[in-house]
Order: sequence, then C-alpha cells, then structure tokens
Amino acid sequence: MKIGIDVGGTNLAAGAVDNNGQIVHSASTPALPENGYASMVDSMAALADELAAWVKENAPEDPVTEIGCGIPGIISRDGATVVNAPNIFWKNEPLQKDLSDKTGLPVYLANDATVAGIAENRFGSTKGFDDAVMYTLGTGVGGCVIINGKIVNGAHGVASEIGHTLDGKNFYTCNCGKNGCLETYASATGLIKRAQRLISEGMQSSILDLAGGDPDKITAKMVLDAAKAGDEVGTECFEIMVDKLTNSFANVIDLIDPAVFTIGGGVANAGDFLLDALKDGMEGKITYPELVDPDIRLASLGNDAGIVGAAYVGDYIVKK
Amino acid sequence: MKIGIDVGGTNLAAGAVDNNGQIVHSASTPALPENGYASMVDSMAALADELAAWVKENAPEDPVTEIGCGIPGIISRDGATVVNAPNIFWKNEPLQKDLSDKTGLPVYLANDATVAGIAENRFGSTKGFDDAVMYTLGTGVGGCVIINGKIVNGAHGVASEIGHTLDGKNFYTCNCGKNGCLETYASATGLIKRAQRLISEGMQSSILDLAGGDPDKITAKMVLDAAKAGDEVGTECFEIMVDKLTNSFANVIDLIDPAVFTIGGGVANAGDFLLDALKDGMEGKITYPELVDPDIRLASLGNDAGIVGAAYVGDYIVKK
Repeated sequence: MKIGIDVGGTNLAAGAVDNNGQIVHSASTPALPENGYASMVDSMAALADELAAWVKENAPEDPVTEIGCGIPGIISRDGATVVNAPNIFWKNEPLQKDLSDKTGLPVYLANDATVAGIAENRFGSTKGFDDAVMYTLGTGVGGCVIINGKIVNGAHGVASEIGHTLDGKNFYTCNCGKNGCLETYASATGLIKRAQRLISEGMQSSILDLAGGDPDKITAKMVLDAAKAGDEVGTECFEIMVDKLTNSFANVIDLIDPAVFTIGGGVANAGDFLLDALKDGMEGKITYPELVDPDIRLASLGNDAGIVGAAYVGDYIVKK
Repeated sequence: MKIGIDVGGTNLAAGAVDNNGQIVHSASTPALPENGYASMVDSMAALADELAAWVKENAPEDPVTEIGCGIPGIISRDGATVVNAPNIFWKNEPLQKDLSDKTGLPVYLANDATVAGIAENRFGSTKGFDDAVMYTLGTGVGGCVIINGKIVNGAHGVASEIGHTLDGKNFYTCNCGKNGCLETYASATGLIKRAQRLISEGMQSSILDLAGGDPDKITAKMVLDAAKAGDEVGTECFEIMVDKLTNSFANVIDLIDPAVFTIGGGVANAGDFLLDALKDGMEGKITYPELVDPDIRLASLGNDAGIVGAAYVGDYIVKK
C-alpha cells in the first residue's frame, strides 16, 4: 500500500492506494497555506499517520511502504526539494526530508500535472507504454513527460512545462511573461480570451447568448459547445487550438517520439470532437508518416488521479 | 577497448577506441552501398576483425569488448534494426544480430547525429552532464537527446530529429515535405537558400562578391563571414537562424530541461560569433529565468567524433 497526497491551495487530499490503483481509504484537511510551510507539513504528516494507522488496523497484510506527493510547483531534479510553489507560498522547501523525518517513510515528490500523467500511465489511458506524454488542458496547460518508464523532471526541475513552449505570436501575453505560449492558445483561459476578443471585434456568436449576454461569463465549455454547433467564433477558437496542439505533438515526436499522447483537464471534456480534430490535424505534420501513426487518447481517470498518481511517484523517479 | 564504426555513403571508417576516447588504431574501406547490405556487413565485420586482431597483438591487456556503429538513418527503439537509411539503401536491416553473429561481439547501433552527441558527452563539450542536447548544424540539422545518461531513441526510432521541429512558415519546403522545419532556417542549406533569395530579390550583398558573382557558388561560410562583417543579407540570414534556434532551445527546455546544449557541424565553425548571439537570443524566451541560465557550448571534438561516439553507443543505450 502507498499513500498519495494531493497538495492544493485549498485542501490537502490524501489516500491509501492499493496495487490496483484503488483508494481504499481517504482523508483530507484544509491546506491553510497562510499558516506557513511547517504547519502544512504537520498537516500532511497527520494525514499520512491517520491513513497508515487505518491500514495497520484494516489491511495489515499490505502495509504502507511509501508516501508520494503531488505539488502545485517546481520540484528539484533529485525530487527532494520544492523549488517554487507560488500558490502555497513555498520556496526551496526540503519537503522530502521533512515529511520523511516526521512519518518514518520514504517520500517522493512530483509536480501535480506530472502526477496526473503518472496515474494515467499506471492505471489509465497510457497504461503499458514506457514513453508517454500527457497534456492537461485546464486553466493553464500542464504536461507530463515519461521516457523509459521514468518522469522527466529536468536538470533544473522545469521540464514538462509544455504549456510554455512557443509557437508564433498571440494577441495576448502569457502569465509567464512570454508571448506565443501554447497555453495561450490551448487552455480554457486561452479559448475564453479569444472568444471575448472576437466578439468584442463585432463577430456575432451564439457564445454570447450562452453567457447570458455577458462576455465575462463565457466559459471554455461554452466556446467548445459553440464550436461543436458550428458557431463561427467557437470554430475559430477551436481550430487555432487544434493547430497549435498538433504543432506541439509533431515537435514532441521529433524530439522524443513518445508511443502515445493523452489529453486531460477540463478542455478535454470536449471528448471525441476534440480527439478526432487532433488526429485529423496531424496530417502533414509528421516527419516520418510511414513510421509514425500518432496514438492520441483522452485521459480516462477522474478526480482521483491526483491522489493515485501521487502514491506512485516513487516508481517513476530515477533512484541513484 | 571498444570498436567504433562510422558508416557513411562513401566510406566505412572504423577505430579501436580506448577508455580515454583515443583512437589507438584505425582502418577504413569504401562503403560501396550499391553492392547491397550483405556485402556492407561483410566489410564492416572485416574491419572489426582487423582491428580486434591488432588490439590482440598490440594491446592484449585491454581486449575489445564490443562494437558500436553510427548509421546515417533511423534505428529501431531497441537498437537492433536499421529501419531506414536512404543514403545507403538499407531498409529494416537487422544489423545488430548480423554483425554480432559475424564478429562474436556485442553490437550497438545509433543514428550518426546521435553518435556525435555521445562523443561530446563522453569526451567533449558536455562531459559530466546526464542531460544534454546536441544540435549538429550541417547540410541538415541533426540532434542528439541524452536524458539520465541515455540517448532518447523514441518509440518508433525517430526521436532527436530536432531539425524537423516546426516554427512558423518558411519561403521554401523542407526535403521532408513539411514547411517550417528548423533545418530550413538553421542549416548550411537554409542559410545559402535565404541568401540566394534575398540577392535575387535585388538586395546588394558582399556575399555575391565572395562567390565570384555566381549565386550558385554561395557557401554557408560566406554567409556567416558576411554576417560577421555586417553585410545586410548575411545579417538577415544569421538573425533568422539565431531566432529560430533560440526558440527551439527554449522549447526543449520547457519539455525536457537539459543541463547543457552544444552545437556542432559546419555552421558552428562560426564559433563565438554564433555562440554569443545564441546566448543573447535566449533573452525573454526562458519560462523560469530565475532558475535556468542556459548553458550553450560549441562542440569540441573534430572528425574523430564519428568513430569515438560510435564506440561508446553501448554505454548510452537502456539495456533491459
């Protein structure tokens, strides 16, 4: 049994996860990042202790062997330190050692988008593949790169930041300060901003009706639903997203050639409409079409992926 | 001692390479690809046998343990098969087994651009780094991606094809059939084609003087020398190349975050002029500038890299 802890800005959600990826028992507590790092580590250790005690009582044949954590931030190459997690105000915190000291268990850390990719690789849409890349299309665009069965964390911990790869210039600058980031074309935020802009420029769109006439109430789902229905604004937003995502897939193939791609996050709820467009969009972008027929899938795990993936981080880290 | 064989369309060049990356004895023979695969394997085996015999006689304390080959083509993920090597007319050839059967030694295969990156990583500019990416800027643009001390070959063998990553649209279509490949901006060919085009459009340039008035005689060195001297056409070619290469470096950092980049090939002979421009060109393209100060270097090994890198392929392959 492994314990997974999904660290968020609002809640710390933890679970005891068995070999089949089932959460056999879970527990959560408010994150309270304003109380500081040490207090949060205490809360995490308390959750882990609670779960370990439950396992000892209820599943003594399968004792807890390790803890994994999904962190909303950057993890050092060796997996020991949270370099920067702005949402919870952490900077250079030695979480691996601190949580291990408190719980007496090995601790492994990964970025939260990486953790989602681990869950998919172990129990979901990319199961069975040693080389897999996940794109999480949410408020931003997160990524998980798995090569030879291990996550790629990078020399400075900033690998798998697929959302910030550059492709031309966009009409607005990314939060990161750069212009042209994939995230500004392919996130929920990017879809909403483009729809708002096209409508403000005078294009007629059913999206505005869906939003009750208030552009500030436009959601990514409205843009995607409008695209499905053939709305001009929705279609333009959708087609630009698909073009930029398929450019990115093609470039990732040329660089690391994964066996499979999977897409998750709220935008991926567009389902087969998005998946089919992505598959069609790869046409003409593959360097060796006779060798590579890109395998693109929809993520198959739901909300539990944060805990389940966290529990299995240890299996995906290169241990020296 | 290891044997490295650099397979080219003209020659098969082989060497016995010691632990310090020194070629202690070498041998070569015409490649004669028109005689077919089996004949070429015979020639490779004969070279290996000759070198092994030399080592047995002259360096008996350090016997030959394995053979590595650099191949101008695509190698399967497991390193066993040459999937496609158009210059020498090979397709799906099981070279690992065939050469091993003939020589009685373990055989390891890699693409020739990958082999150059291995040589740099073991004995040259990226020595000591587990995560390194090499760009070879020659007639085309080749790549070598090393993560956790192993080369990334890809699920279909087509990884490290950095030259075919897309960045916008260019004025001509790449040999691969796509438009916008890095190689069309940053190879010797790309530099020459752009200079020819700008001159044909009427721009005045010292490059034409260097080429004796004949646009067909323009070389990449002429374009780069003109750029150094401030020539307008040379500068435009150079600046576009630098912009596209630095976009690519930035995207590679966001995806796999290597510790170091190195550039080789004929275009890299522009030396510090190119290196300084690349370093300056990264400004504003890094997602986490507070964490990543890109380390970009010039390849340090010369013509021997093909043999030396080939000899060490076995150390860079994930063995299951």
